[in-house]
Amino acid sequence: MPLHGSCSLRQTLPIVSNTIGTLFRLTSFGESHGAAIGGVVDGCPAGVPFDSQLLTAEMDRRHIGSDATSRREPDEVEILSGILNSVTLGTPIAFIIRNKEARSEDYDTLRTLYRPGHADYTCMQRYGIRDPRGGGRASGRETAVRVAGGAVAKMLLRQWGFTIQTVLTENPTPDADDSSGGVIECTVAHLPAGIGNPLFDKLNARLAAAMMSIPSAIGFEMGSGFRAASMKGSEFRDEWNSDFTTRTNHCGGVQGGISNGMPVTFRTAFHPVVTIPQPTTCIDNNGALVTLTPKGRHDRCHLPRTAVVVEAMTALTLADFLVQSPKTTQHNIGTPLQ
Amino acid sequence: MPLHGSCSLRQTLPIVSNTIGTLFRLTSFGESHGAAIGGVVDGCPAGVPFDSQLLTAEMDRRHIGSDATSRREPDEVEILSGILNSVTLGTPIAFIIRNKEARSEDYDTLRTLYRPGHADYTCMQRYGIRDPRGGGRASGRETAVRVAGGAVAKMLLRQWGFTIQTVLTENPTPDADDSSGGVIECTVAHLPAGIGNPLFDKLNARLAAAMMSIPSAIGFEMGSGFRAASMKGSEFRDEWNSDFTTRTNHCGGVQGGISNGMPVTFRTAFHPVVTIPQPTTCIDNNGALVTLTPKGRHDRCHLPRTAVVVEAMTALTLADFLVQSPKTTQHNIGTPLQ
Amino acid sequence: MPLHGSCSLRQTLPIVSNTIGTLFRLTSFGESHGAAIGGVVDGCPAGVPFDSQLLTAEMDRRHIGSDATSRREPDEVEILSGILNSVTLGTPIAFIIRNKEARSEDYDTLRTLYRPGHADYTCMQRYGIRDPRGGGRASGRETAVRVAGGAVAKMLLRQWGFTIQTVLTENPTPDADDSSGGVIECTVAHLPAGIGNPLFDKLNARLAAAMMSIPSAIGFEMGSGFRAASMKGSEFRDEWNSDFTTRTNHCGGVQGGISNGMPVTFRTAFHPVVTIPQPTTCIDNNGALVTLTPKGRHDRCHLPRTAVVVEAMTALTLADFLVQSPKTTQHNIGTPLQ
Amino acid sequence: MPLHGSCSLRQTLPIVSNTIGTLFRLTSFGESHGAAIGGVVDGCPAGVPFDSQLLTAEMDRRHIGSDATSRREPDEVEILSGILNSVTLGTPIAFIIRNKEARSEDYDTLRTLYRPGHADYTCMQRYGIRDPRGGGRASGRETAVRVAGGAVAKMLLRQWGFTIQTVLTENPTPDADDSSGGVIECTVAHLPAGIGNPLFDKLNARLAAAMMSIPSAIGFEMGSGFRAASMKGSEFRDEWNSDFTTRTNHCGGVQGGISNGMPVTFRTAFHPVVTIPQPTTCIDNNGALVTLTPKGRHDRCHLPRTAVVVEAMTALTLADFLVQSPKTTQHNIGTPLQ
Repeated sequence: MPLHGSCSLRQTLPIVSNTIGTLFRLTSFGESHGAAIGGVVDGCPAGVPFDSQLLTAEMDRRHIGSDATSRREPDEVEILSGILNSVTLGTPIAFIIRNKEARSEDYDTLRTLYRPGHADYTCMQRYGIRDPRGGGRASGRETAVRVAGGAVAKMLLRQWGFTIQTVLTENPTPDADDSSGGVIECTVAHLPAGIGNPLFDKLNARLAAAMMSIPSAIGFEMGSGFRAASMKGSEFRDEWNSDFTTRTNHCGGVQGGISNGMPVTFRTAFHPVVTIPQPTTCIDNNGALVTLTPKGRHDRCHLPRTAVVVEAMTALTLADFLVQSPKTTQHNIGTPLQ
Repeated sequence: MPLHGSCSLRQTLPIVSNTIGTLFRLTSFGESHGAAIGGVVDGCPAGVPFDSQLLTAEMDRRHIGSDATSRREPDEVEILSGILNSVTLGTPIAFIIRNKEARSEDYDTLRTLYRPGHADYTCMQRYGIRDPRGGGRASGRETAVRVAGGAVAKMLLRQWGFTIQTVLTENPTPDADDSSGGVIECTVAHLPAGIGNPLFDKLNARLAAAMMSIPSAIGFEMGSGFRAASMKGSEFRDEWNSDFTTRTNHCGGVQGGISNGMPVTFRTAFHPVVTIPQPTTCIDNNGALVTLTPKGRHDRCHLPRTAVVVEAMTALTLADFLVQSPKTTQHNIGTPLQ
Repeated sequence: MPLHGSCSLRQTLPIVSNTIGTLFRLTSFGESHGAAIGGVVDGCPAGVPFDSQLLTAEMDRRHIGSDATSRREPDEVEILSGILNSVTLGTPIAFIIRNKEARSEDYDTLRTLYRPGHADYTCMQRYGIRDPRGGGRASGRETAVRVAGGAVAKMLLRQWGFTIQTVLTENPTPDADDSSGGVIECTVAHLPAGIGNPLFDKLNARLAAAMMSIPSAIGFEMGSGFRAASMKGSEFRDEWNSDFTTRTNHCGGVQGGISNGMPVTFRTAFHPVVTIPQPTTCIDNNGALVTLTPKGRHDRCHLPRTAVVVEAMTALTLADFLVQSPKTTQHNIGTPLQ
Repeated sequence: MPLHGSCSLRQTLPIVSNTIGTLFRLTSFGESHGAAIGGVVDGCPAGVPFDSQLLTAEMDRRHIGSDATSRREPDEVEILSGILNSVTLGTPIAFIIRNKEARSEDYDTLRTLYRPGHADYTCMQRYGIRDPRGGGRASGRETAVRVAGGAVAKMLLRQWGFTIQTVLTENPTPDADDSSGGVIECTVAHLPAGIGNPLFDKLNARLAAAMMSIPSAIGFEMGSGFRAASMKGSEFRDEWNSDFTTRTNHCGGVQGGISNGMPVTFRTAFHPVVTIPQPTTCIDNNGALVTLTPKGRHDRCHLPRTAVVVEAMTALTLADFLVQSPKTTQHNIGTPLQ
C-alpha cells in the first residue's frame, strides 16, 4: 500500500541528490510548475569569458522538435551572480529560469492516479508526498537547468579546445499514435591523455552515472561496448601506433578509468516516451485500474532535444575532472579580470 | 610525450577515488605487490551479525576458474576493528589481506614499456609516476577488497531479506591462445518500492557507476536496455497489475531513479582480457614499438570470477541507499550487543 | 608581491566553500553589489510548515542598530522553489534577495588599495583577482543569506520544540570615533541527549567551525571554556543527579562530541569592526602606504545584529545533525501535504 | 531513560565521522581494546620522501609524561601501502598499530555504569550500544592514529618549509590527588599569504573544528582571541608595513578566512582530565548513583602529550588546504619515483 496517508520526517528526508560534481558542481532547484527553476554552478575558475550567446543557443537546442508540446516557454536564463564584465569571478554562478504559462489544473485528474512508466508511484513511495503539479522535480523541464549549467562548463572546456559532439543513431521514426526512443552517440575530441582517476572514480564510471541520470536513459556503453563482450582479446585490444595513438579505439578512449588521448566515445540508449496519445491505464491508491485518454500534446520522440542534455552532462563531468588535472591547470586561461 | 622525467605535486595530486558511497562507504587501499591490501567499511549500523563463513565463501568465489594463474593467494581476510562477539559495533570495520608470493621481478621487463589495452600509459600520464610492481592499484587484485567489503554489505542486506543473484550470459568460450569477455546479468529480488533518489543520484545511475568501475566493464543497461531504444512506447511502458506490480519489467525495476518494487535487473558487459598468450607489441617512452612474448599464465576469461565482484558492487551500492531509507530503517535489525 | 598581473586557472580555482552541511545544507551565492544574493537549502524534509513571518522577522533582526549605514536594503526574500501551500516539499528551497541601491563607485578609490584588517589582500593572494565592487563575497551582506537559510532551519527545529537563544555579553560601548567588538553567548534548550558524533564530526567541533565562519569571529568556547583550563578535575567534572541531569554544566552540554541532555551553551568572541571613522593607512600593489579618510558611514559595533547570524549558524548546524538522528526522525513532524 | 534494551538500525546508524579532510584525508579506525587501531591517509601526492624517523619520534612524543599510566604500548606503526623505496606513491597510505596488553576486565565494573564527565552516557544515547571494553572509539588511544596521520602531513608540509610549533601555556601543576588542564598555543611559521577559503570553509573555521575535535578541548581562539572582544578597532586592526607584513598580529595571521603571510597563531583550551584518583559517583541505567574508587592509574595532566596531537591536527588541516593551493602546487616537491 502506498504511503499517502501519513507523513513523517523518516519518510520524507531527502538525501543529497540535487548536486552533481566534486569540485566543479551544479546544484539544481525548482519545480516544473513553481515560480522558477534554476541552478548554482560552484567551482568554476575565475577569468573564464562568459558567452551569453552560447548559453542562448544551447537553451534553444533544447526546444528543437518540441513544437508538439503546447507549452512554450522562452526559457530566458537570468544570471544572478558570479559574472562581472562578461568574465567569471570564481564565485558561485547562480541563474534562474522563470516558469510561465504553468497550468497545474491540467494535472488535477492525475492527482490520485499513478501513470504507467512514470515516476508517480515511485516518488510517492520514496517521499510519502508529491507535488501534484506536473511531475514536480521528476519532469523533463528540469533538464533546462542541466543545459544552462552545461553551457557554463562548455565555456570552461573551450579554453583548452575541447569539443563535444553528439550524433543521433538508431532512432526509429515515431508513429502518429505512438512514441519512440533511440541512441545518442557522443564524442569528445582533443582530450589529452591522463584525465580521470583509477578505482572507483573512473572517467567512464562518472560518464555512465551522468548519462544514466538523464530522464529516459536506460543503457550506456563506451567504445565498442556490448559488442566487445563477444570479441576475442586479440581483436579488442587497441594496438599502438608509434605516436602513442592506437590503430583502433574499441575501448572508447579510456583505459583503467583514465583517458588515453584518443577520442572519448560513448553511446546512451533512451527508452521511448511513456506518454503516448492512446488510452492509458493508471492505478489509484486503492489498486483500482482507471483508463484515461490523455489530454494535451507531448513529444513523441524527445531524442532530438535530448542531444544537448547529453552534451551538457558530458561537459559538467569533464569540467569536474579538468579543474583537478595538472594537464589543464598549468595552462593560463581566459582574460584576467581588471 | 609521456611525463616520465619530471614529478611535481601538480602532476601527482590524487583526487578522492578510493572511497565509494555516501553514508555506507568502502575505502580501499593497497598495492598488488605491497605488504597488504585492505579496506575500511564505515557507516555500517551496529547490531548486524557478522558472518565470517559468508566472507570466506565470497572470497573463494573470486578464485573460481582462476587456476590458470600461477599466483595462488589464499586471501585470508583479517578483521581489525568494528566487530565484537560476531556483531558489528557501528564503528569502522577495517580489514587487511596480506600479499603473499609477490614476485615483482616478473614485471621488471615491463617497467619502461606500456602494454596495449592496459592502464600503464594512462596511469603514467595521470600521475607522472607508477608502481613498477604489477599494476599497482590498477590490478585485478584490488577487486578482492571490493568482495570483502561487499560481503559486509550483504550481511546488512540479509537483515531485510534482499538477495542478489548473477547469471553469466553471452560468454563465448575462450580459445587456447586467445581470451574472451562476456555479459553478466544481475537481479536484486524483494527490494521494496521507494529506494533511490530523483535527479542526479538515481539508483540506476549509481548502479551504472558501480558497475563501470569494475575492471574491464565496458557497457551497462537496465531492464530491456539497448533493445528498449527501438521499442514503441506502447510496447515499452510496463502496464499495471492491480497489486502494484507490473505485467512486464522493461524498465528493470527502476522508474525516475527510484525502485518500483519489481525485481531490479541490469546487465554489465565486459571486454575480453587484454593479456593474451600471444606476442604483444608494447611501446616505450620514446615511442619505439617492442614485441614481447608474455611469460606467466593469466586467465583467458575472468567472467566466472567477476560475478562475485558484480554482486559486491551491487551490495555496496544498495547498502548505501538502504541506510538512508525509511522503508528499512524503521525495522529492527540484528542482535543487540549485550 | 601580490599576484595582480597574471591570472591562470591554477591561481583562481575555487574550492568547495560556499556550501555548509552534510545532509541539511545551505549553498550561498551572490556578490554584495551584483544583481542578487541568495541561497539553496537542500535536505529539508517534506511537510514542514513554512513560516514566512519568522523569515521576515529574522531578516529584520539583522538590521537592528544598523541605522548608521547609509545603505538601506529592505532585504525582501523571494522564495523560488521547494514550498507549496506553505509547506516544504522535500525539494531544494531556493531564495533570492535582490540588491538595491548598490553604488560601486564608492569603492573605486579602494580598487588598487588593500585596507588594513580587511580581506582585500588575502582574497587577491588567494584568487589573483577580486571583485572591485565592495567586498565581493567577503562582505557582511553575505550574512543575509545565512539568516534566511537559518530561518528555514529554525522552522524545522521548532517541530521538536528546540529553541535557540543568544545573549550579548562583554560588549563595550563604541566611541564616536572608534569601534568595538564583543562576545555573544548562545544557548540551545531542550536538545535531547544523543545528538552529535564522536571523533572528528563532534557537535562542538561543528559548532566551532560554524561560529568561526562568521565574519569577525575570533574565539569560541563551550560551557566554562577557557576558564576550565585552570580548574581542577574535581571542580570541572559535572556530577550526576539521579534524573540523568548534572549539577553543574561546565562542559556546556556536550561530552565526547555528543549532547548529554543539558542546555548546550557556547560563546563566540568577535573582534571590533575594522572600518573606523579615522584616517586609514592602506597599501597598494607596489607596497606604497596611502592614507585615506573613509567616506560613507559604517556601524561602529555589529554585535547587536550579529546575534541573529549566530542563531542562524547554530540552527543550520543542529538541523544537519538532527535530520540524521534517530531521536528526532522517529517522530512525525509537520503537516502532510495533501 | 537510556536506550540500553533495544537496538534498531535507526538508533545505531553511524554518520560519516571517522574521516577528516576534503582532498587530503585521514580515515581512522579501531577500538582501544580490539585487535588494532589504524588509519588511511588518502590524497597525499606522490613523490614525498617518507621519513620513518619522524613518524617514530612523533609517536614517542605522545608518550611524554604518560609514565603514570600502567598501560605501556610501544605503538609501533606498520605501514601497509602507499610507500615504495621510502617515497609516497600517490596511493592510499594505510597503517596499523596493534593493541597489546589490552585488559578489558579492568573495565567490567564500569560496564553498566556511566562515569561523570565521560562520554559513556552520551555514546549510549547516540548508538544504543557501546563497546564495554574501555572507551571503544571514545578513548584517548584513538589520538595515536591522528599523530601517525599528522606525521605524514608534516612530511608533505616540510617540502615547502612550513613548520608547526606548540607552546604549553597556563598549565597549572596537578595535585597528587586531582587533575588539571591547560592551554596549548600553536604557531605555523612561513605559511604564505593566500591559503584558505572565504565564506564557510575558512582556514580559521577548519582549524577550530580540528582543535575542538581533540578529546578534552573546550575553547579555541585565533591571535588575540577573546581579548580582541574588548579592544577598540583602532587598537585591533593590524597596520601595514611596506613589505606587506603587519606591525601587530592580533588577527592571528588570517583575514577573511585566508592567510595573510604573518605567522598563524591560535590557542586551544583543554579541560582537566575527568578521571581522578578520588571516589567517583557514577549513575547506572536505573538512575541509581553508585560511588566507586577508581583502580588503575591515569595521567593527571595530559597536556604535555596533547601538544603533538595539536600539531598533528594542524598539519592535517593545512595539508588539505595546501594540496588545493596554487601557491604550493606549482612548485616541484620531493624525489620522483624511478
